[in-house]
Amino acid sequence: MKSLIDILDFSVEEIDELIYLANDIIDNPKKYSEICKGKKLANLFFEPSTRTRLSFEAAMYELGGNVIGFSEAASSSVSKGESVADTTKVISCYADIIVIRHPKEGAAYVAANNTSVPVINAGDGGHCHPTQTLADLLTIYREKGRLKDLTIGFCGDLKYGRTVHSLINALTRYDNINMVFISPKELKVPNYIKKDLLENKDVSYEETTKLEEVIPKLDILYMTRIQKERFLNAEDYLRLKDSYVLTLEKLNGAKSDMSIMHPLPRVNEISVSVDKDSRACYFKQVLNGKYIRMALIIKLLKESMNFNFDFIGYVDPNTMVNIMKDNKRIRNLNTERHKRLTNLIKCNNPRCITSTEQELEHIFELRDKEDEIYRCIYCEAKGNR
Amino acid sequence: MKSLIDILDFSVEEIDELIYLANDIIDNPKKYSEICKGKKLANLFFEPSTRTRLSFEAAMYELGGNVIGFSEAASSSVSKGESVADTTKVISCYADIIVIRHPKEGAAYVAANNTSVPVINAGDGGHCHPTQTLADLLTIYREKGRLKDLTIGFCGDLKYGRTVHSLINALTRYDNINMVFISPKELKVPNYIKKDLLENKDVSYEETTKLEEVIPKLDILYMTRIQKERFLNAEDYLRLKDSYVLTLEKLNGAKSDMSIMHPLPRVNEISVSVDKDSRACYFKQVLNGKYIRMALIIKLLKESMNFNFDFIGYVDPNTMVNIMKDNKRIRNLNTERHKRLTNLIKCNNPRCITSTEQELEHIFELRDKEDEIYRCIYCEAKGNR
Amino acid sequence: MKSLIDILDFSVEEIDELIYLANDIIDNPKKYSEICKGKKLANLFFEPSTRTRLSFEAAMYELGGNVIGFSEAASSSVSKGESVADTTKVISCYADIIVIRHPKEGAAYVAANNTSVPVINAGDGGHCHPTQTLADLLTIYREKGRLKDLTIGFCGDLKYGRTVHSLINALTRYDNINMVFISPKELKVPNYIKKDLLENKDVSYEETTKLEEVIPKLDILYMTRIQKERFLNAEDYLRLKDSYVLTLEKLNGAKSDMSIMHPLPRVNEISVSVDKDSRACYFKQVLNGKYIRMALIIKLLKESMNFNFDFIGYVDPNTMVNIMKDNKRIRNLNTERHKRLTNLIKCNNPRCITSTEQELEHIFELRDKEDEIYRCIYCEAKGNR
Repeated sequence: MKSLIDILDFSVEEIDELIYLANDIIDNPKKYSEICKGKKLANLFFEPSTRTRLSFEAAMYELGGNVIGFSEAASSSVSKGESVADTTKVISCYADIIVIRHPKEGAAYVAANNTSVPVINAGDGGHCHPTQTLADLLTIYREKGRLKDLTIGFCGDLKYGRTVHSLINALTRYDNINMVFISPKELKVPNYIKKDLLENKDVSYEETTKLEEVIPKLDILYMTRIQKERFLNAEDYLRLKDSYVLTLEKLNGAKSDMSIMHPLPRVNEISVSVDKDSRACYFKQVLNGKYIRMALIIKLLKESMNFNFDFIGYVDPNTMVNIMKDNKRIRNLNTERHKRLTNLIKCNNPRCITSTEQELEHIFELRDKEDEIYRCIYCEAKGNR
Repeated sequence: MKSLIDILDFSVEEIDELIYLANDIIDNPKKYSEICKGKKLANLFFEPSTRTRLSFEAAMYELGGNVIGFSEAASSSVSKGESVADTTKVISCYADIIVIRHPKEGAAYVAANNTSVPVINAGDGGHCHPTQTLADLLTIYREKGRLKDLTIGFCGDLKYGRTVHSLINALTRYDNINMVFISPKELKVPNYIKKDLLENKDVSYEETTKLEEVIPKLDILYMTRIQKERFLNAEDYLRLKDSYVLTLEKLNGAKSDMSIMHPLPRVNEISVSVDKDSRACYFKQVLNGKYIRMALIIKLLKESMNFNFDFIGYVDPNTMVNIMKDNKRIRNLNTERHKRLTNLIKCNNPRCITSTEQELEHIFELRDKEDEIYRCIYCEAKGNR
Repeated sequence: MKSLIDILDFSVEEIDELIYLANDIIDNPKKYSEICKGKKLANLFFEPSTRTRLSFEAAMYELGGNVIGFSEAASSSVSKGESVADTTKVISCYADIIVIRHPKEGAAYVAANNTSVPVINAGDGGHCHPTQTLADLLTIYREKGRLKDLTIGFCGDLKYGRTVHSLINALTRYDNINMVFISPKELKVPNYIKKDLLENKDVSYEETTKLEEVIPKLDILYMTRIQKERFLNAEDYLRLKDSYVLTLEKLNGAKSDMSIMHPLPRVNEISVSVDKDSRACYFKQVLNGKYIRMALIIKLLKESMNFNFDFIGYVDPNTMVNIMKDNKRIRNLNTERHKRLTNLIKCNNPRCITSTEQELEHIFELRDKEDEIYRCIYCEAKGNR
């Protein structure tokens, strides 16, 4: 079974392969327009996310396939108390590949463990959203021609932003990435990310509260929403929010080829007047998101048992050779590299899928031998023996 | 007009035909993969039922057709007070075949009376759900190789379970079926089913409250959900519910080839540990449900005015001959076999479609001449002259 | 960019072209059945409208294309506060043509201004619903063979009915149209329509409260719903409503070929018994609505940048020549014919898109030089300098 639950399920080489394939799709859309004929993608959106859902729908249709599914839990059987495992088993009778969005952390992982068709995580609570990260990486590659030697600013809510954490994580694997974190002090990057991801891997970073001071050195500025609810104090919010709104004025000091990115939807953190500036890339990101999802669907279906390679006829054989020689690099999901404990530690995270799923074993992995740190395999929460 | 409102609309021979066709689809999916090209199925789900809806969607896509529709009443025009008759007339301008799920009993029948395209009942309140029964019959046939000479246990809520009543009804038409009813005394099979369906037709049955005692003799065990709301007394529920939960332990006494069935979704009445037992058939039922729906769509479109037989080119002519020679057996819906009274008796069932539909005539049929029993043609409720 | 926001965006010749094309589709559906292969239509329904949504879905599928979208705001990103402009920009990464239904007046216009793909207004609040009007015109043409020399009765709520106002507007451009307005005095056609549209253009009309008196002279009777909420007084409603319900009895005095139209859904303003009368056209209207939408999709895609004319192979070249010679007649949307003021007058209409859309300029046009009347370009509300 090949699935994408966490961006780190893919090696750097596999991500390269996806970016290569996405670029080929952009250049030669007709070559791929019937490749998934007769295949069905299931969109299981247990909570609404129009943009992501429609991106997958458009991707599958542009590959010649079909789409089934639901856009919110209210119109699904969840209201009857069915487990994610059962829903997945049922849906794999109907579809060749499953996309799942769920409010509980680890839900996509549970889905992948209960089906023989590939599963794509389209967001599991605050945990992972790997196809957004893939869209970001493709955008950086297409804008800059490389994924290394870059100075990248992250601006806004860096404490809670799932998108930002995932992109930081993915970028630590490339050479010579300098990160600049721009946020109010209440919304700084969490220490465990700075320590575990950056310092341990010798990734250079700096922190500031002032966008204007650092903007001149940035190759990329990644903006995010600042949500009012994050502040204890309404006055602090009002005082701070404008500092992190990107305007044409603030862009004056930036490089002429700096790329402005945003995962969308925005509320008001980028002024509409910036949209026409040639540096604005956030709508290109949307388009790239569709193309990288097309590449991902092809890759996962190619690996799965039930894709019968009918489509080879449609594809330039040379391209296929290039794509297929990477097959061996694809890791199986969930290779057990760590010692595991089953039902000895209970996960106490109320947002974890273990809190609701019927008869699901609580499994913890020993991640850090020295400090004896165990983490839940579904939601990454710490547990103590 | 050919439609499927009640499982008894089809003769035993027609059900055989569907099972034959479904088996051929399973063996030769490509033969059917373009058969409905250019056709559209409308899924009108006035209440949510993800599993059934997606089963029809997958079925239609695997036949090369398209799907339109809605998944709940809130996103339909129902909120504007439109009648089922009008909605059906409108939708038949858009689609070649209609699937309807509605909370009111008789709604699918009203739909079928207001359109020239075939209508499939996907559940009308607590009344009928014939495609679930077809899925059950196909599963029994594929697991056992026959639909006769079987001992079948039904376990759980046998009083309110629409699925169980419909399957009992369908099975009474086959030879040498022995039924074993396993339920708490509060949830026994209703007397009218035992008297009218079983005793009148000399079908042998027995009743018990103990699963373990009868499990050794069963060829098939059909499990159903026990809902807390069905009990007057919470203590009774707690005391009883575990007796009707199927575990590996309780399976110890069963035949090694007993088939375990369940209409799904389950809550906890079958332990997850049973899923891996080779006797578990409930996810195969889901798959069979898709295939029998494919067969049903083909059968009904074939009969309907607006299916132009373009597809013959795709199908092995020998198969088609076999399928088509059955045409003459297909009965028209609503053949009037009984004396009818129009607007002389009023239906008092609040769940009947007559309670909401604009200007709908109340029609009763004389079903039992001796006792002068009249029944509503929509919901089967008794009425008195 | 070619879009359809208001019925008056199209010239009389363009409407003729659409009617010609729709008739050709009705006569030769196979010629068009693959014309949109590989194209995607996005249905953005910010409020539910099943009939209109499914009409567009069916239309696109009958042209061989695909459909993505959402059927209500709750399952979209709107809940996250995204602007219509941003949503449109995102969706145009996924789709080749956009259909939008939105509760705010002017929303479709904002959408059209923010994308390079064609936009179709499927209803923006109480403002416009041009594809309903196109369906009405095609129905009149097919029933009567002409769009001139007609006596047309409008019956019911003529004060608030968007559908009626739009059809009146469209019909004023044809020769020798006589209008008969039949309504309770509380629900008469507004004075600005009578003065600006009818008297200024010398269109003859008369007003009455009695359907029976005028029905003998009508070529067409256009019925509409009377909503209880429109009356200050429940007694008035009860007293009046039956006068405007069409029954077989009231039809006795009508011409034998009078066409009865209704935009649907109806509640009870046309008795079900009228449905079988040969004069009833309201379900034909639904079918015509699908065909005119097919024509509209073809026309707009043909004009747009991203339609590559692949489909010419599927179409009789003679027909294409006929269709394409009309290209030059198509006006660009928003030709500035009037003096405009930007951000000098504020629109105070709470139903206008300017009340919610982020950073949207308030723009007013000078429509009447003598009286110095300015109107909001989004919702047509008057504004004062």
